[in-house]
Amino acid sequence: MDFLAWMTAAQQRSEAALSHHQPGASVTPERLHEAMRYSTLGGGKRVRPLLCYAAGEVFGAADEQLDLPAAAVEMIHAYSLVHDDLPCMDNDRLRRGKPTCHVEFDEATALLVGDALQSQAFQLLADAPLDAGKVVTMLSLLAHAAGSRGMAGGQAIDLAATGKTQSLAALEFMHLHKTGALIRAAVLMGAHCGNPEGAELLALTHFANRIGLLFQVVDDILDAEASTATLGKTAGKDAAQNKSTYVSLLGTAAAKAKAAELRGEAHAALDRLGRDALRLHQLTDYIVDRHF
Amino acid sequence: MDFLAWMTAAQQRSEAALSHHQPGASVTPERLHEAMRYSTLGGGKRVRPLLCYAAGEVFGAADEQLDLPAAAVEMIHAYSLVHDDLPCMDNDRLRRGKPTCHVEFDEATALLVGDALQSQAFQLLADAPLDAGKVVTMLSLLAHAAGSRGMAGGQAIDLAATGKTQSLAALEFMHLHKTGALIRAAVLMGAHCGNPEGAELLALTHFANRIGLLFQVVDDILDAEASTATLGKTAGKDAAQNKSTYVSLLGTAAAKAKAAELRGEAHAALDRLGRDALRLHQLTDYIVDRHF
Repeated sequence: MDFLAWMTAAQQRSEAALSHHQPGASVTPERLHEAMRYSTLGGGKRVRPLLCYAAGEVFGAADEQLDLPAAAVEMIHAYSLVHDDLPCMDNDRLRRGKPTCHVEFDEATALLVGDALQSQAFQLLADAPLDAGKVVTMLSLLAHAAGSRGMAGGQAIDLAATGKTQSLAALEFMHLHKTGALIRAAVLMGAHCGNPEGAELLALTHFANRIGLLFQVVDDILDAEASTATLGKTAGKDAAQNKSTYVSLLGTAAAKAKAAELRGEAHAALDRLGRDALRLHQLTDYIVDRHF
Repeated sequence: MDFLAWMTAAQQRSEAALSHHQPGASVTPERLHEAMRYSTLGGGKRVRPLLCYAAGEVFGAADEQLDLPAAAVEMIHAYSLVHDDLPCMDNDRLRRGKPTCHVEFDEATALLVGDALQSQAFQLLADAPLDAGKVVTMLSLLAHAAGSRGMAGGQAIDLAATGKTQSLAALEFMHLHKTGALIRAAVLMGAHCGNPEGAELLALTHFANRIGLLFQVVDDILDAEASTATLGKTAGKDAAQNKSTYVSLLGTAAAKAKAAELRGEAHAALDRLGRDALRLHQLTDYIVDRHF
Protein backbone atom coordinates (compact mmCIF):
# COMPACT_ATOMS: atom_id res chain seq x y z
CA MET A 1 0.00 0.00 0.00
CA ASP A 2 1.40 3.42 -0.84
CA PHE A 3 1.72 6.05 1.86
CA LEU A 4 -1.29 8.15 0.90
CA ALA A 5 -3.57 5.11 0.80
CA TRP A 6 -2.23 3.96 4.19
CA MET A 7 -2.70 7.44 5.64
CA THR A 8 -6.24 7.81 4.32
CA ALA A 9 -7.20 4.40 5.70
CA ALA A 10 -5.70 5.22 9.12
CA GLN A 11 -7.43 8.60 9.20
CA GLN A 12 -10.77 6.96 8.41
CA ARG A 13 -10.15 4.33 11.05
CA SER A 14 -9.34 7.07 13.56
CA GLU A 15 -12.44 9.08 12.65
CA ALA A 16 -14.62 5.99 13.08
CA ALA A 17 -13.09 5.22 16.48
CA LEU A 18 -13.58 8.81 17.66
CA SER A 19 -17.19 8.76 16.56
CA HIS A 20 -17.94 5.34 17.99
CA HIS A 21 -16.27 5.89 21.36
CA GLN A 22 -18.09 8.99 22.51
CA PRO A 23 -21.80 9.46 23.23
CA GLY A 24 -24.14 10.26 20.35
CA ALA A 25 -25.62 13.75 20.01
CA SER A 26 -29.02 12.42 21.14
CA VAL A 27 -27.68 11.30 24.54
CA THR A 28 -28.40 13.67 27.47
CA PRO A 29 -26.98 16.31 27.80
CA GLU A 30 -27.53 16.64 24.06
CA ARG A 31 -25.97 20.04 23.50
CA LEU A 32 -22.76 19.06 25.27
CA HIS A 33 -22.47 15.84 23.27
CA GLU A 34 -23.23 17.68 20.03
CA ALA A 35 -20.47 20.19 20.85
CA MET A 36 -18.02 17.39 21.74
CA ARG A 37 -18.66 15.75 18.38
CA TYR A 38 -18.39 19.11 16.61
CA SER A 39 -14.96 19.56 18.19
CA THR A 40 -13.57 16.09 17.46
CA LEU A 41 -15.08 14.83 14.20
CA GLY A 42 -14.83 15.72 10.53
CA GLY A 43 -11.54 17.55 10.45
CA GLY A 44 -7.90 17.58 11.34
CA LYS A 45 -4.95 15.72 9.90
CA ARG A 46 -5.00 13.21 12.78
CA VAL A 47 -1.22 13.40 13.06
CA ARG A 48 -1.21 11.92 16.57
CA PRO A 49 -3.38 8.89 15.74
CA LEU A 50 -1.28 8.35 12.60
CA LEU A 51 1.87 8.30 14.71
CA CYS A 52 0.24 5.93 17.18
CA TYR A 53 -0.84 3.48 14.46
CA ALA A 54 2.54 3.73 12.72
CA ALA A 55 4.51 3.14 15.92
CA GLY A 56 2.24 0.25 16.90
CA GLU A 57 2.80 -1.41 13.52
CA VAL A 58 6.58 -1.39 14.13
CA PHE A 59 6.16 -3.44 17.30
CA GLY A 60 3.53 -5.88 16.04
CA ALA A 61 0.39 -4.36 17.55
CA ALA A 62 -2.93 -5.00 15.80
CA ASP A 63 -5.05 -2.08 14.61
CA GLU A 64 -7.83 -3.20 16.98
CA GLN A 65 -5.46 -2.70 19.91
CA LEU A 66 -4.40 0.72 18.67
CA ASP A 67 -7.82 2.25 17.97
CA LEU A 68 -8.61 3.36 21.52
CA PRO A 69 -5.16 4.64 22.55
CA ALA A 70 -4.96 6.57 19.25
CA ALA A 71 -8.42 8.06 19.79
CA ALA A 72 -7.54 8.92 23.39
CA VAL A 73 -4.52 10.96 22.33
CA GLU A 74 -6.57 12.75 19.67
CA MET A 75 -9.28 13.58 22.23
CA ILE A 76 -6.70 15.19 24.49
CA HIS A 77 -5.44 17.17 21.49
CA ALA A 78 -9.00 18.21 20.53
CA TYR A 79 -9.79 19.32 24.09
CA SER A 80 -6.63 21.42 24.17
CA LEU A 81 -7.65 23.20 20.94
CA VAL A 82 -11.11 24.00 22.34
CA HIS A 83 -9.65 25.48 25.51
CA ASP A 84 -6.80 27.28 23.70
CA ASP A 85 -9.31 29.02 21.44
CA LEU A 86 -11.29 30.47 24.40
CA PRO A 87 -11.33 34.25 24.86
CA CYS A 88 -9.14 34.09 27.99
CA MET A 89 -6.46 32.21 26.01
CA ASP A 90 -5.90 32.81 22.26
CA ASN A 91 -9.40 34.16 21.62
CA ASP A 92 -9.59 32.54 18.22
CA ARG A 93 -12.71 32.35 16.10
CA LEU A 94 -11.66 29.94 13.35
CA ARG A 95 -10.38 26.35 13.58
CA ARG A 96 -10.13 23.76 10.80
CA GLY A 97 -12.11 26.13 8.59
CA LYS A 98 -15.06 26.23 10.99
CA PRO A 99 -16.12 28.55 13.84
CA THR A 100 -14.38 27.59 17.07
CA CYS A 101 -16.45 25.73 19.67
CA HIS A 102 -17.22 28.75 21.86
CA VAL A 103 -18.29 30.76 18.79
CA GLU A 104 -20.52 27.98 17.44
CA PHE A 105 -21.92 27.12 20.90
CA ASP A 106 -20.97 29.33 23.85
CA GLU A 107 -18.08 29.79 26.26
CA ALA A 108 -19.46 27.74 29.11
CA THR A 109 -20.22 24.85 26.77
CA ALA A 110 -16.73 25.05 25.26
CA LEU A 111 -15.22 24.91 28.74
CA LEU A 112 -17.25 21.78 29.54
CA VAL A 113 -16.49 20.23 26.14
CA GLY A 114 -12.78 20.41 26.87
CA ASP A 115 -13.26 19.08 30.39
CA ALA A 116 -15.46 16.20 29.25
CA LEU A 117 -13.20 15.29 26.32
CA GLN A 118 -10.28 14.95 28.70
CA SER A 119 -12.29 12.56 30.90
CA GLN A 120 -13.48 10.67 27.82
CA ALA A 121 -9.89 10.20 26.65
CA PHE A 122 -9.05 8.42 29.90
CA GLN A 123 -12.26 6.41 29.68
CA LEU A 124 -11.09 5.11 26.30
CA LEU A 125 -7.88 3.80 27.85
CA ALA A 126 -9.90 1.90 30.43
CA ASP A 127 -11.92 0.34 27.60
CA ALA A 128 -8.93 -0.63 25.40
CA PRO A 129 -8.62 -4.37 24.64
CA LEU A 130 -5.20 -4.67 26.27
CA ASP A 131 -3.67 -6.28 29.35
CA ALA A 132 -4.34 -4.22 32.47
CA GLY A 133 -0.60 -3.69 32.89
CA LYS A 134 -0.37 -2.10 29.45
CA VAL A 135 -3.40 0.09 30.18
CA VAL A 136 -1.71 1.39 33.33
CA THR A 137 1.45 2.18 31.35
CA MET A 138 -0.62 4.16 28.82
CA LEU A 139 -2.54 5.88 31.59
CA SER A 140 0.72 7.11 33.06
CA LEU A 141 2.09 8.20 29.66
CA LEU A 142 -1.08 10.08 28.70
CA ALA A 143 -1.70 11.71 32.08
CA HIS A 144 1.89 12.91 32.26
CA ALA A 145 1.81 14.19 28.68
CA ALA A 146 -1.42 16.12 29.22
CA GLY A 147 -0.61 17.56 32.64
CA SER A 148 1.33 20.39 34.22
CA ARG A 149 4.69 18.91 33.26
CA GLY A 150 3.44 18.25 29.74
CA MET A 151 0.95 19.99 27.49
CA ALA A 152 -0.86 22.13 30.08
CA GLY A 153 2.49 23.18 31.48
CA GLY A 154 3.64 24.12 27.98
CA GLN A 155 0.58 26.32 27.63
CA ALA A 156 1.44 28.04 30.88
CA ILE A 157 5.04 28.59 29.74
CA ASP A 158 3.71 29.95 26.44
CA LEU A 159 1.35 32.34 28.27
CA ALA A 160 4.14 33.64 30.45
CA ALA A 161 6.30 34.27 27.37
CA THR A 162 3.70 36.10 25.27
CA GLY A 163 4.87 39.59 24.40
CA LYS A 164 8.47 38.82 25.37
CA THR A 165 11.30 37.77 23.09
CA GLN A 166 12.40 34.28 24.08
CA SER A 167 15.74 32.59 23.56
CA LEU A 168 15.81 29.69 21.14
CA ALA A 169 16.43 27.35 24.06
CA ALA A 170 13.39 28.69 25.92
CA LEU A 171 11.26 28.36 22.78
CA GLU A 172 12.38 24.76 22.36
CA PHE A 173 11.70 23.98 26.02
CA MET A 174 8.18 25.38 25.63
CA HIS A 175 7.44 23.37 22.49
CA LEU A 176 8.82 20.13 23.96
CA HIS A 177 6.02 20.55 26.51
CA LYS A 178 3.20 22.27 24.63
CA THR A 179 3.07 20.05 21.55
CA GLY A 180 6.00 17.66 22.06
CA ALA A 181 4.66 15.88 25.11
CA LEU A 182 1.51 14.64 23.41
CA ILE A 183 3.34 13.64 20.24
CA ARG A 184 5.78 11.66 22.38
CA ALA A 185 2.84 9.99 24.13
CA ALA A 186 1.22 9.10 20.79
CA VAL A 187 4.39 7.35 19.60
CA LEU A 188 5.16 5.59 22.89
CA MET A 189 1.57 4.50 23.49
CA GLY A 190 1.48 2.98 20.01
CA ALA A 191 4.73 1.16 20.69
CA HIS A 192 3.51 -0.15 24.04
CA CYS A 193 0.51 -1.76 22.32
CA GLY A 194 3.14 -4.10 20.91
CA ASN A 195 6.27 -5.37 22.60
CA PRO A 196 9.07 -2.81 22.54
CA GLU A 197 12.35 -3.25 24.40
CA GLY A 198 13.96 -0.66 26.67
CA ALA A 199 16.61 0.52 24.21
CA GLU A 200 13.99 0.79 21.48
CA LEU A 201 11.88 3.04 23.69
CA LEU A 202 14.85 5.35 24.11
CA ALA A 203 15.39 5.63 20.35
CA LEU A 204 11.65 6.17 19.86
CA THR A 205 11.60 8.91 22.49
CA HIS A 206 14.44 10.62 20.68
CA PHE A 207 12.55 10.25 17.40
CA ALA A 208 9.37 11.64 18.94
CA ASN A 209 11.14 14.66 20.42
CA ARG A 210 12.64 15.46 17.00
CA ILE A 211 9.36 15.24 15.13
CA GLY A 212 7.57 17.19 17.86
CA LEU A 213 9.94 20.08 17.27
CA LEU A 214 9.88 19.50 13.52
CA PHE A 215 6.11 19.77 13.55
CA GLN A 216 6.36 23.09 15.37
CA VAL A 217 9.05 24.58 13.14
CA VAL A 218 6.92 23.71 10.12
CA ASP A 219 3.85 25.21 11.81
CA ASP A 220 5.74 28.43 12.45
CA ILE A 221 6.82 28.63 8.81
CA LEU A 222 3.26 27.95 7.63
CA ASP A 223 1.84 30.51 10.03
CA ALA A 224 4.24 33.13 8.67
CA GLU A 225 3.77 32.26 4.99
CA ALA A 226 0.27 30.89 4.47
CA SER A 227 -3.07 32.64 4.23
CA THR A 228 -5.98 32.03 6.62
CA ALA A 229 -7.90 30.28 3.83
CA THR A 230 -5.12 27.73 3.18
CA LEU A 231 -4.51 27.19 6.88
CA GLY A 232 -8.13 26.80 8.04
CA LYS A 233 -7.20 28.78 11.12
CA THR A 234 -6.21 32.39 11.66
CA ALA A 235 -2.86 32.97 9.92
CA GLY A 236 -0.16 35.35 11.08
CA LYS A 237 -1.45 35.33 14.64
CA ASP A 238 1.93 34.55 16.18
CA ALA A 239 3.31 37.82 14.81
CA ALA A 240 0.12 39.67 15.77
CA GLN A 241 0.44 38.38 19.35
CA ASN A 242 4.14 39.18 19.47
CA LYS A 243 5.01 35.54 20.10
CA SER A 244 8.51 34.29 19.53
CA THR A 245 8.63 31.62 16.81
CA TYR A 246 11.37 29.82 14.96
CA VAL A 247 10.75 32.24 12.10
CA SER A 248 10.88 35.37 14.24
CA LEU A 249 14.06 34.19 16.00
CA LEU A 250 15.88 32.60 13.05
CA GLY A 251 14.28 33.97 9.88
CA THR A 252 12.51 31.78 7.33
CA ALA A 253 15.60 30.38 5.62
CA ALA A 254 17.28 29.27 8.84
CA ALA A 255 13.97 27.89 10.11
CA LYS A 256 13.76 25.74 6.99
CA ALA A 257 17.34 24.60 7.54
CA LYS A 258 16.41 23.72 11.12
CA ALA A 259 13.49 21.67 9.81
CA ALA A 260 15.82 19.78 7.46
CA GLU A 261 18.21 19.08 10.35
CA LEU A 262 15.42 17.79 12.61
CA ARG A 263 14.10 15.62 9.79
CA GLY A 264 17.52 14.04 9.40
CA GLU A 265 17.80 13.39 13.14
CA ALA A 266 14.34 11.83 13.20
CA HIS A 267 15.22 9.40 10.41
CA ALA A 268 18.51 8.57 12.11
CA ALA A 269 16.70 7.76 15.38
CA LEU A 270 14.36 5.41 13.50
CA ASP A 271 17.32 3.70 11.83
CA ARG A 272 18.69 2.89 15.27
CA LEU A 273 15.61 0.75 15.93
CA GLY A 274 16.83 -1.88 13.49
CA ARG A 275 13.19 -2.62 12.65
CA ASP A 276 11.03 -1.89 9.65
CA ALA A 277 9.64 1.55 10.50
CA LEU A 278 8.47 2.53 7.02
CA ARG A 279 5.34 4.42 8.05
CA LEU A 280 7.18 6.44 10.69
CA HIS A 281 9.80 7.41 8.09
CA GLN A 282 7.04 8.42 5.69
CA LEU A 283 5.16 10.38 8.34
CA THR A 284 8.33 12.29 9.15
CA ASP A 285 8.63 13.38 5.53
CA TYR A 286 4.93 14.14 5.36
CA ILE A 287 5.16 16.48 8.33
CA VAL A 288 7.80 18.50 6.50
CA ASP A 289 6.41 18.33 3.01
CA ARG A 290 2.74 18.90 3.74
CA HIS A 291 2.83 22.47 2.50
CA PHE A 292 6.24 23.50 1.22
CA MET B 1 -11.22 6.38 68.10
CA ASP B 2 -14.18 8.74 68.17
CA PHE B 3 -15.56 10.08 64.92
CA LEU B 4 -14.04 13.56 65.10
CA ALA B 5 -10.58 12.17 65.81
CA TRP B 6 -10.95 9.71 62.92
CA MET B 7 -12.15 12.47 60.61
CA THR B 8 -9.37 14.85 61.56
CA ALA B 9 -6.76 12.13 61.01
CA ALA B 10 -8.23 11.21 57.62
CA GLN B 11 -8.40 14.86 56.56
CA GLN B 12 -4.75 15.35 57.52
CA ARG B 13 -3.80 12.19 55.66
CA SER B 14 -5.68 13.43 52.62
CA GLU B 15 -4.06 16.86 52.77
CA ALA B 16 -0.61 15.26 52.99
CA ALA B 17 -1.32 13.01 49.99
CA LEU B 18 -2.60 15.94 47.92
CA SER B 19 0.48 17.97 48.75
CA HIS B 20 2.92 15.13 48.18
CA HIS B 21 1.45 13.92 44.89
CA GLN B 22 1.56 17.11 42.87
CA PRO B 23 4.58 19.15 41.83
CA GLY B 24 6.02 21.71 44.24
CA ALA B 25 5.55 25.41 43.60
CA SER B 26 9.22 25.72 42.62
CA VAL B 27 8.86 23.26 39.72
CA THR B 28 8.52 24.85 36.23
CA PRO B 29 5.99 26.25 35.33
CA GLU B 30 6.05 27.74 38.83
CA ARG B 31 2.99 29.95 38.62
CA LEU B 32 0.81 27.09 37.38
CA HIS B 33 2.02 24.79 40.13
CA GLU B 34 1.54 27.49 42.73
CA ALA B 35 -2.03 28.01 41.49
CA MET B 36 -2.71 24.26 41.52
CA ARG B 37 -1.57 24.05 45.13
CA TYR B 38 -3.59 27.16 46.01
CA SER B 39 -6.69 25.44 44.61
CA THR B 40 -6.22 22.06 46.27
CA LEU B 41 -4.52 22.56 49.64
CA GLY B 42 -5.42 24.11 52.97
CA GLY B 43 -9.17 24.03 52.81
CA GLY B 44 -12.29 22.02 52.20
CA LYS B 45 -14.03 19.39 54.27
CA ARG B 46 -12.54 16.61 52.11
CA VAL B 47 -15.90 14.82 52.06
CA ARG B 48 -14.95 12.70 49.03
CA PRO B 49 -11.62 11.45 50.44
CA LEU B 50 -13.37 10.76 53.77
CA LEU B 51 -15.95 8.63 51.95
CA CYS B 52 -13.20 6.84 50.06
CA TYR B 53 -11.23 6.03 53.23
CA ALA B 54 -14.40 5.00 55.08
CA ALA B 55 -15.59 2.73 52.26
CA GLY B 56 -12.14 1.19 51.90
CA GLU B 57 -12.04 0.39 55.61
CA VAL B 58 -15.26 -1.61 55.29
CA PHE B 59 -13.67 -3.90 52.72
CA GLY B 60 -10.29 -4.34 54.34
CA ALA B 61 -8.20 -1.89 52.30
CA ALA B 62 -5.14 -0.35 53.93
CA ASP B 63 -4.83 3.43 54.20
CA GLU B 64 -1.70 3.27 51.99
CA GLN B 65 -3.80 1.79 49.20
CA LEU B 66 -6.49 4.42 49.62
CA ASP B 67 -4.34 7.55 49.67
CA LEU B 68 -3.96 7.98 45.91
CA PRO B 69 -7.50 7.08 44.82
CA ALA B 70 -8.86 9.41 47.54
CA ALA B 71 -6.55 12.23 46.42
CA ALA B 72 -7.49 11.61 42.77
CA VAL B 73 -11.19 12.08 43.49
CA GLU B 74 -10.48 15.25 45.46
CA MET B 75 -8.36 16.64 42.60
CA ILE B 76 -11.24 16.12 40.18
CA HIS B 77 -13.51 17.92 42.67
CA ALA B 78 -11.01 20.77 43.09
CA TYR B 79 -10.61 21.20 39.32
CA SER B 80 -14.40 21.36 38.93
CA LEU B 81 -14.62 24.15 41.51
CA VAL B 82 -11.91 26.18 39.75
CA HIS B 83 -13.70 25.89 36.40
CA ASP B 84 -17.18 26.45 37.89
CA ASP B 85 -16.02 29.69 39.46
CA LEU B 86 -14.82 31.13 36.11
CA PRO B 87 -16.63 34.19 34.69
CA CYS B 88 -18.22 32.18 31.87
CA MET B 89 -19.75 29.80 34.45
CA ASP B 90 -20.81 30.95 37.93
CA ASN B 91 -18.47 33.97 37.97
CA ASP B 92 -17.75 33.57 41.67
CA ARG B 93 -15.08 35.49 43.56
CA LEU B 94 -14.98 33.66 46.89
CA ARG B 95 -14.31 29.99 47.65
CA ARG B 96 -13.45 28.40 50.99
CA GLY B 97 -13.06 31.93 52.40
CA LYS B 98 -10.37 32.86 49.85
CA PRO B 99 -10.41 34.60 46.46
CA THR B 100 -11.22 32.11 43.70
CA CYS B 101 -8.34 30.93 41.51
CA HIS B 102 -9.01 33.28 38.59
CA VAL B 103 -9.29 36.24 40.97
CA GLU B 104 -6.07 35.38 42.83
CA PHE B 105 -4.20 34.49 39.62
CA ASP B 106 -5.91 35.10 36.26
CA GLU B 107 -8.49 33.45 34.03
CA ALA B 108 -6.07 31.71 31.69
CA THR B 109 -4.15 30.28 34.64
CA ALA B 110 -7.37 29.10 36.28
CA LEU B 111 -8.38 27.36 33.07
CA LEU B 112 -5.02 25.55 32.94
CA VAL B 113 -5.14 24.75 36.67
CA GLY B 114 -8.40 22.87 36.15
CA ASP B 115 -7.09 21.11 33.08
CA ALA B 116 -3.83 20.10 34.75
CA LEU B 117 -5.54 18.95 37.96
CA GLN B 118 -7.73 16.63 35.95
CA SER B 119 -4.66 15.10 34.29
CA GLN B 120 -2.91 14.87 37.65
CA ALA B 121 -5.87 13.00 39.15
CA PHE B 122 -5.50 10.29 36.52
CA GLN B 123 -1.74 10.26 37.01
CA LEU B 124 -2.34 9.45 40.69
CA LEU B 125 -4.37 6.38 39.75
CA ALA B 126 -1.50 5.14 37.60
CA ASP B 127 0.82 5.55 40.59
CA ALA B 128 -1.43 3.83 43.15
CA PRO B 129 0.10 0.76 44.85
CA LEU B 130 -2.60 -1.58 43.60
CA ASP B 131 -2.94 -4.47 41.12
CA ALA B 132 -3.14 -3.22 37.54
CA GLY B 133 -6.64 -4.72 37.26
CA LYS B 134 -7.85 -2.64 40.20
CA VAL B 135 -6.25 0.49 38.74
CA VAL B 136 -8.16 -0.04 35.49
CA THR B 137 -11.42 -0.45 37.42
CA MET B 138 -10.76 2.83 39.21
CA LEU B 139 -9.77 4.54 35.98
CA SER B 140 -13.09 3.59 34.47
CA LEU B 141 -15.06 4.66 37.57
CA LEU B 142 -13.31 8.03 37.81
CA ALA B 143 -13.35 8.85 34.08
CA HIS B 144 -17.04 8.03 33.85
CA ALA B 145 -17.84 10.03 36.98
CA ALA B 146 -15.96 13.09 35.75
CA GLY B 147 -17.14 13.04 32.14
CA SER B 148 -20.12 14.03 30.04
CA ARG B 149 -22.36 11.38 31.58
CA GLY B 150 -21.20 12.33 35.05
CA MET B 151 -20.04 15.58 36.62
CA ALA B 152 -19.35 17.60 33.45
CA GLY B 153 -22.69 16.47 32.04
CA GLY B 154 -24.39 17.55 35.27
CA GLN B 155 -22.83 20.99 34.86
CA ALA B 156 -24.22 21.19 31.33
CA ILE B 157 -27.68 20.16 32.55
CA ASP B 158 -27.43 22.78 35.29
CA LEU B 159 -26.44 25.47 32.78
CA ALA B 160 -29.36 24.62 30.52
CA ALA B 161 -31.75 24.86 33.48
CA THR B 162 -30.54 28.19 34.88
CA GLY B 163 -33.33 30.74 34.91
CA LYS B 164 -36.01 28.08 34.44
CA THR B 165 -38.10 26.38 37.11
CA GLN B 166 -37.27 22.68 37.11
CA SER B 167 -39.37 19.76 38.27
CA LEU B 168 -38.16 17.93 41.35
CA ALA B 169 -37.35 14.93 39.14
CA ALA B 170 -35.24 17.07 36.79
CA LEU B 171 -33.44 18.64 39.75
CA GLU B 172 -32.66 15.20 41.15
CA PHE B 173 -31.43 13.97 37.77
CA MET B 174 -29.12 16.97 37.54
CA HIS B 175 -27.69 16.46 41.03
CA LEU B 176 -27.19 12.72 40.52
CA HIS B 177 -24.78 13.79 37.76
CA LYS B 178 -23.33 17.09 38.94
CA THR B 179 -22.33 16.08 42.48
CA GLY B 180 -23.65 12.53 42.78
CA ALA B 181 -21.40 10.93 40.19
CA LEU B 182 -18.17 11.88 41.94
CA ILE B 183 -19.48 10.94 45.38
CA ARG B 184 -20.47 7.55 43.98
CA ALA B 185 -16.98 7.18 42.51
CA ALA B 186 -15.37 8.08 45.85
CA VAL B 187 -17.32 5.36 47.65
CA LEU B 188 -16.91 2.69 44.97
CA MET B 189 -13.20 3.39 44.43
CA GLY B 190 -12.62 3.06 48.15
CA ALA B 191 -14.49 -0.23 48.18
CA HIS B 192 -12.55 -1.55 45.19
CA CYS B 193 -9.28 -0.99 47.06
CA GLY B 194 -10.50 -3.88 49.19
CA ASN B 195 -12.46 -6.91 48.10
CA PRO B 196 -16.16 -6.14 47.70
CA GLU B 197 -18.67 -8.60 46.24
CA GLY B 198 -21.19 -7.82 43.50
CA ALA B 199 -24.23 -7.52 45.76
CA GLU B 200 -22.29 -5.32 48.15
CA LEU B 201 -21.41 -2.94 45.32
CA LEU B 202 -25.11 -2.60 44.52
CA ALA B 203 -25.96 -1.68 48.11
CA LEU B 204 -23.02 0.72 48.19
CA THR B 205 -24.15 2.38 44.96
CA HIS B 206 -27.58 2.86 46.49
CA PHE B 207 -25.99 4.32 49.61
CA ALA B 208 -23.80 6.65 47.54
CA ASN B 209 -26.74 7.92 45.48
CA ARG B 210 -28.65 8.70 48.68
CA ILE B 211 -25.82 10.61 50.32
CA GLY B 212 -25.07 12.43 47.06
CA LEU B 213 -28.59 13.83 47.07
CA LEU B 214 -28.49 14.31 50.83
CA PHE B 215 -25.37 16.40 50.47
CA GLN B 216 -27.09 18.58 47.89
CA VAL B 217 -30.31 19.05 49.86
CA VAL B 218 -28.25 20.15 52.85
CA ASP B 219 -26.21 22.48 50.62
CA ASP B 220 -29.39 24.08 49.32
CA ILE B 221 -30.66 24.63 52.86
CA LEU B 222 -27.33 26.10 53.92
CA ASP B 223 -27.20 28.34 50.87
CA ALA B 224 -30.66 29.68 51.68
CA GLU B 225 -30.08 30.11 55.42
CA ALA B 226 -26.41 30.82 56.05
CA SER B 227 -24.34 33.96 55.61
CA THR B 228 -21.39 34.29 53.26
CA ALA B 229 -19.05 34.49 56.25
CA THR B 230 -20.23 31.16 57.70
CA LEU B 231 -20.26 29.47 54.32
CA GLY B 232 -16.85 30.65 53.04
CA LYS B 233 -18.43 31.08 49.62
CA THR B 234 -21.04 33.46 48.28
CA ALA B 235 -24.35 32.72 50.02
CA GLY B 236 -27.78 33.08 48.48
CA LYS B 237 -26.42 32.81 44.97
CA ASP B 238 -28.87 30.10 43.92
CA ALA B 239 -31.76 32.49 44.52
CA ALA B 240 -29.87 35.36 42.91
CA GLN B 241 -29.24 33.21 39.80
CA ASN B 242 -32.86 32.03 39.73
CA LYS B 243 -31.74 28.41 40.10
CA SER B 244 -34.21 25.78 41.23
CA THR B 245 -33.18 24.20 44.52
CA TYR B 246 -34.77 21.80 46.95
CA VAL B 247 -35.63 24.84 49.05
CA SER B 248 -37.16 26.85 46.20
CA LEU B 249 -39.21 23.86 45.03
CA LEU B 250 -40.21 22.38 48.39
CA GLY B 251 -39.70 25.11 50.99
CA THR B 252 -37.27 24.82 53.89
CA ALA B 253 -39.38 22.57 56.12
CA ALA B 254 -40.06 19.99 53.40
CA ALA B 255 -36.41 20.15 52.29
CA LYS B 256 -35.40 19.25 55.85
CA ALA B 257 -37.90 16.39 55.86
CA LYS B 258 -36.41 15.21 52.56
CA ALA B 259 -32.94 15.28 54.13
CA ALA B 260 -34.20 13.15 57.03
CA GLU B 261 -35.71 10.66 54.60
CA LEU B 262 -32.52 10.38 52.54
CA ARG B 263 -30.50 9.93 55.71
CA GLY B 264 -32.72 7.02 56.71
CA GLU B 265 -32.38 5.41 53.30
CA ALA B 266 -28.60 5.80 53.38
CA HIS B 267 -28.35 4.06 56.76
CA ALA B 268 -30.67 1.29 55.56
CA ALA B 269 -28.50 0.70 52.48
CA LEU B 270 -25.43 0.38 54.71
CA ASP B 271 -27.26 -2.08 56.98
CA ARG B 272 -27.82 -4.32 53.96
CA LEU B 273 -24.04 -4.74 53.63
CA GLY B 274 -23.95 -6.91 56.73
CA ARG B 275 -20.49 -5.53 57.46
CA ASP B 276 -19.19 -3.08 60.02
CA ALA B 277 -19.62 0.26 58.25
CA LEU B 278 -19.32 2.52 61.29
CA ARG B 279 -17.46 5.38 59.59
CA LEU B 280 -19.89 5.49 56.67
CA HIS B 281 -22.81 5.67 59.11
CA GLN B 282 -21.08 8.46 60.99
CA LEU B 283 -20.25 10.35 57.80
CA THR B 284 -23.89 10.18 56.77
CA ASP B 285 -24.93 11.84 60.01
CA TYR B 286 -22.11 14.34 59.73
CA ILE B 287 -23.27 15.45 56.28
CA VAL B 288 -26.69 16.28 57.72
CA ASP B 289 -25.63 17.69 61.06
CA ARG B 290 -22.63 19.76 59.94
CA HIS B 291 -24.55 23.04 60.23
CA PHE B 292 -28.12 22.57 61.44
